[in-house]
Amino acid sequence: MTTEITAPAISLATLLAQDPAFRLHEGGKLETRPAVPVRDANDLSLAYTPGVARVCTAIAERPELADDYTWRSNVVAVVTDGTAVLGLGDIGPTAAMPVMEGKSLLFKQFGGVDSVPICLDCTDVDELVETIARMAPSFGGINLEDISAPRCFEVERRLKERLDIPVFHDDQHGTAIVVLAALRNAARLTGRRLWDLRAVVAGAGASGLAVTSMLLKAGIAEVIVSDSKGVVHQGRDDLNTYKALIATCTNHSGHTGTTEEAMAGADVFIGLSGSTVSERAIASMAPGSIVFALSNPEPEIHPGIAMEHAAVVATGRSDFPNQINNVLAFPGVFRGALSARAVEITENMKMAAAHALSSVIEEELSAERIIPEPFDPRVVPAVAAAVADQARRDGVARLRGL
Amino acid sequence: MTTEITAPAISLATLLAQDPAFRLHEGGKLETRPAVPVRDANDLSLAYTPGVARVCTAIAERPELADDYTWRSNVVAVVTDGTAVLGLGDIGPTAAMPVMEGKSLLFKQFGGVDSVPICLDCTDVDELVETIARMAPSFGGINLEDISAPRCFEVERRLKERLDIPVFHDDQHGTAIVVLAALRNAARLTGRRLWDLRAVVAGAGASGLAVTSMLLKAGIAEVIVSDSKGVVHQGRDDLNTYKALIATCTNHSGHTGTTEEAMAGADVFIGLSGSTVSERAIASMAPGSIVFALSNPEPEIHPGIAMEHAAVVATGRSDFPNQINNVLAFPGVFRGALSARAVEITENMKMAAAHALSSVIEEELSAERIIPEPFDPRVVPAVAAAVADQARRDGVARLRGL
Repeated sequence: MTTEITAPAISLATLLAQDPAFRLHEGGKLETRPAVPVRDANDLSLAYTPGVARVCTAIAERPELADDYTWRSNVVAVVTDGTAVLGLGDIGPTAAMPVMEGKSLLFKQFGGVDSVPICLDCTDVDELVETIARMAPSFGGINLEDISAPRCFEVERRLKERLDIPVFHDDQHGTAIVVLAALRNAARLTGRRLWDLRAVVAGAGASGLAVTSMLLKAGIAEVIVSDSKGVVHQGRDDLNTYKALIATCTNHSGHTGTTEEAMAGADVFIGLSGSTVSERAIASMAPGSIVFALSNPEPEIHPGIAMEHAAVVATGRSDFPNQINNVLAFPGVFRGALSARAVEITENMKMAAAHALSSVIEEELSAERIIPEPFDPRVVPAVAAAVADQARRDGVARLRGL
Repeated sequence: MTTEITAPAISLATLLAQDPAFRLHEGGKLETRPAVPVRDANDLSLAYTPGVARVCTAIAERPELADDYTWRSNVVAVVTDGTAVLGLGDIGPTAAMPVMEGKSLLFKQFGGVDSVPICLDCTDVDELVETIARMAPSFGGINLEDISAPRCFEVERRLKERLDIPVFHDDQHGTAIVVLAALRNAARLTGRRLWDLRAVVAGAGASGLAVTSMLLKAGIAEVIVSDSKGVVHQGRDDLNTYKALIATCTNHSGHTGTTEEAMAGADVFIGLSGSTVSERAIASMAPGSIVFALSNPEPEIHPGIAMEHAAVVATGRSDFPNQINNVLAFPGVFRGALSARAVEITENMKMAAAHALSSVIEEELSAERIIPEPFDPRVVPAVAAAVADQARRDGVARLRGL
């Protein structure tokens, strides 16, 4: 007779119950609530038939009244196809929901913006654009989320053309706003201005290209972009349309080698790649260098090691100083755009958001404090006011006064 | 010199401010709220990155976990294309929003069901089906609303085939459930059973055809349906597919004339047409007749006049006795279907809902009380329990126990 030794059976339910993240997620993280009382037949006759018919009739005659008499002007759709979720990749629409719900609750908690997570079961660009455009009458804005590059660029471009409400791909522009704000403060802290800096951006996906574009608009001296094949330059014949475009306005110094070769003598490293960089590459940068190792959960280099060579280090993590977190941008950006009833979010509005975000702490700068904490109560009001003000200056605000 | 007499200028704003329905609608009637705390960085690390990634990964491996760890299994999309809104007709998706928001708040207030109003900017059947199917991973159920006939039948049929969540066109089935419940009680009150009754249904749109179908399933003796051209019969060559089908299983007595001609000697009149019927036609019905004049805001005949000839009268209005109101059905139907995690709403489940609804007041019946009031707290629990129980009997419940 043989004796088999087996591990004690632990059910999945037991494992899940031990993880506080699963406990918190039980039943979901979001709910809808009536914003008006429905206590009796009289309330019902105003909120629903027959009273509601008068409101519908008025909106049918003057559609702009929908901004005042429905929730549309305060509600944003958080839309994904589940193809590039966090660092997890293409996990599909069903598995993407917890991230979209999380985003929705941050919209409300930080920006007072109502928000609905919409996970779409299609990945074709035409289908995404059509589906989102058909839903648009229901929303005051569209926050695109975790749609993989390069499709995300085309989806956003076409929706911006077609719709008269803000369309904002947060992985691109949210990240770019917070990076620019942090970099501006890091430059100031180290006695330089943005136009003194040469930066290497590792990663040519949605966030890498958007960060590059925004740094160039803000007047940085030079950006060198790299992807998994090395530095992006005009001599390469394997570039998609977007990388080819970036190649024409970056890398004036003509690098053709690896990311680490390009880092020698650079002032700034911005990692958005999910790969790693060596300590030697960090050490080869210019004196007073600025390192943003933003990959999550593993930064491109451990911030403790980077600090031995760099003047300022930031990551995407909450357990190190200087967290580059999109929650510093998107609630205020949409709060401002919705409050001004902006028909779009312009480049100037994003720039104004970055400027406002860096200004919040410009009197408190230190190497461990180049960007506010996510829970800093000054952030959203400052960003929202700057965005709404810029919307009016740009002539895209339908509501002029506050 | 001439003197012109002009009315004092009253601004639209002043007019709107005087109407309590507009005051109540200011800023919309619905909001989203976090269902979990987001007070500090620790909360954020569980509700959002990095904790959320573990939940997403688990769902990607076992998609059914989305029912437990997202809000999906408690949230219904209220979807319209704005083509048949209340009695207002085709007012478009933007103007339809107040009704859909109203529906969403009733879902929450009465059924504890989270709900999102989605007003779609398309009316083609293929486009509606594709758009709604692509959104489906975000929702635990689809409530179709105010989509004009006959497109609504095809949209619902194709979505039911394609999706594994409940799809329910409330204008059809919500109305049919409440009408059947009320008629069952009216029959009991007047000493008859459903199979003793001959009914005339005026109106062959979404609700008229659904009511007819449900009364036939419930075993009524005969239904005669009429539309704007008169009684629906097999000799007519102007019938759409759905009316032609109805013609084969109704009107066994072979009527070919007007609605009023068919009413002579009938036990039941159900008005869902938006037209009127004469007092003479009501007077020509069988003794102890039952009149449901359900058009809103103007019933087919004033209930006071109908009461002079009929034993029981019901309307769609809250200011007369016996209000036939869909809010008696849809919150409980979806509450039950979602609680059982039903993959569809079967005919048996609708029948169970009607039975439960009529049973709530079967000990309290009077001519002025054949259906519960909307705010009767017994309604939703009774309907939900009956629907969930029937879902288990029908083998469509994914959650077996309560």
